[in-house]
Amino acid sequence: MNGWHETEVRVRYAETDQMGIAHHSNYLIWFEAGRSDLCRARGFSYKEMEEKEDALMVVAESYVRYKSPAFYEDVLSIRTTISEVRSRSIRFSYEIHRRSDEALIAEGETLHLVTDKRQRVKTIPEAYKHLLSEDSSRAFPAEQGPS
Amino acid sequence: MNGWHETEVRVRYAETDQMGIAHHSNYLIWFEAGRSDLCRARGFSYKEMEEKEDALMVVAESYVRYKSPAFYEDVLSIRTTISEVRSRSIRFSYEIHRRSDEALIAEGETLHLVTDKRQRVKTIPEAYKHLLSEDSSRAFPAEQGPS
Amino acid sequence: MNGWHETEVRVRYAETDQMGIAHHSNYLIWFEAGRSDLCRARGFSYKEMEEKEDALMVVAESYVRYKSPAFYEDVLSIRTTISEVRSRSIRFSYEIHRRSDEALIAEGETLHLVTDKRQRVKTIPEAYKHLLSEDSSRAFPAEQGPS
Amino acid sequence: MNGWHETEVRVRYAETDQMGIAHHSNYLIWFEAGRSDLCRARGFSYKEMEEKEDALMVVAESYVRYKSPAFYEDVLSIRTTISEVRSRSIRFSYEIHRRSDEALIAEGETLHLVTDKRQRVKTIPEAYKHLLSEDSSRAFPAEQGPS
Repeated sequence: MNGWHETEVRVRYAETDQMGIAHHSNYLIWFEAGRSDLCRARGFSYKEMEEKEDALMVVAESYVRYKSPAFYEDVLSIRTTISEVRSRSIRFSYEIHRRSDEALIAEGETLHLVTDKRQRVKTIPEAYKHLLSEDSSRAFPAEQGPS
Repeated sequence: MNGWHETEVRVRYAETDQMGIAHHSNYLIWFEAGRSDLCRARGFSYKEMEEKEDALMVVAESYVRYKSPAFYEDVLSIRTTISEVRSRSIRFSYEIHRRSDEALIAEGETLHLVTDKRQRVKTIPEAYKHLLSEDSSRAFPAEQGPS
Repeated sequence: MNGWHETEVRVRYAETDQMGIAHHSNYLIWFEAGRSDLCRARGFSYKEMEEKEDALMVVAESYVRYKSPAFYEDVLSIRTTISEVRSRSIRFSYEIHRRSDEALIAEGETLHLVTDKRQRVKTIPEAYKHLLSEDSSRAFPAEQGPS
Repeated sequence: MNGWHETEVRVRYAETDQMGIAHHSNYLIWFEAGRSDLCRARGFSYKEMEEKEDALMVVAESYVRYKSPAFYEDVLSIRTTISEVRSRSIRFSYEIHRRSDEALIAEGETLHLVTDKRQRVKTIPEAYKHLLSEDSSRAFPAEQGPS
């Protein structure tokens, strides 16, 4: 599949809970690590967009479907893709697999609105939109797509 | 509405991010605080169910809609209700409001499966199901429902 | 004892780890909750100092001695005091006890430097220093000192 | 220096706070990542020791000296060494540097006691002690010591 980006995380001890599995709130943090990494790989600096364009990507919705627990020290592959770019919003989709057995750990989505520092929704700056849109994803294919 | 339970949290400094707002992963932790508190209020001990019945409530899905940012020191009201009890699953719904101006901060849902320690899905122990089901919610109405 | 302030937290499920106890990194977050609360009780707004005076209280050192584990749902009392105020630094001391049996859970210290947004150390604004110094602590005795 | 192990982490967005820097509680989590990694590199499985020997490494003390802030996306090198092994305790020392400019971000220590699941202090199992002691550190020199 086109445009998937892959990031690795190792489950930290601090991320486990007394059930002996990674706590479900960490998945949103791992999704974010995948998202940051995808953006970086496309030459899109989130930090720069924040500082130079006064454009923040605020999370408007998150959805996670937990399929199988992840354990301490598991190496997880976070697969991220941009599923939709509109003038004021971006949707990312994710899949998390465990490296050792390729088990599907979770899948999910986040929807982001672009706002200024005062939380007013604004149009995505054109240069940044370009980097995130389909065409540029074809121009810079992810080296490590899941298949 | 019947059966809402209310829990207060104050946004911690550690929960903010460099956007100056509470990071979106914390909402799942606040939902969990609300859920724990609702269970406790109904005489349902999650801890006890884990230890005595080998029954864990595993999160199967989470959904959050972020409506308005929350800031450091904001006092938030987490309103929690049980929206569905089935033989092997429980669904909770949530609303978060800021105390000072009653702004709606977020709303969401979590779906839980009951499993044993080996992650095999099992039927909710009857005594616990009773405490969570509609009838018992009518018997112990929440004093602080949102309306 | 003079000048101790008391704050309550309840151990969250997300704060536990697979050892079945609260993860040790949370203690610094609880200390911070105690510190924020003490400041608030003395009319010292940390938020205001950040925004109006460009004065940040950066953590320079932290020390925690873990005495006894804390468990999910434990209600903890964070006791905080200001042990030293100097022209450019403030030292806070902490004790954490479990409410149910008064067990000592932890004790610790944090040292803070006052800086501007560019991380340059600066003198504590006089008005804020006054609120934190001994005299003001006598003028505004904590209502809930541990004894 | 002999026996230092090196682990990389990238500062996550969720780890920043509204001061625009990585929150100080994360340093204990990064230390832990370094510690886990060092143990793994020496063939010491913390997970295995927990499960097979009923031996937990409980944190008894932590100390962090924060030297310079770390920012979102910074790649940090966590350098970890075992500074002391005794019959019932182990002391680890840490240094954190930023990769890009080699700035010293923090240094610190943690002291660990070995206990069983009921929190009773016990002697470190001999096989595990051997893996952590000086001799074995000479036998398996870290490939990536800072020099």
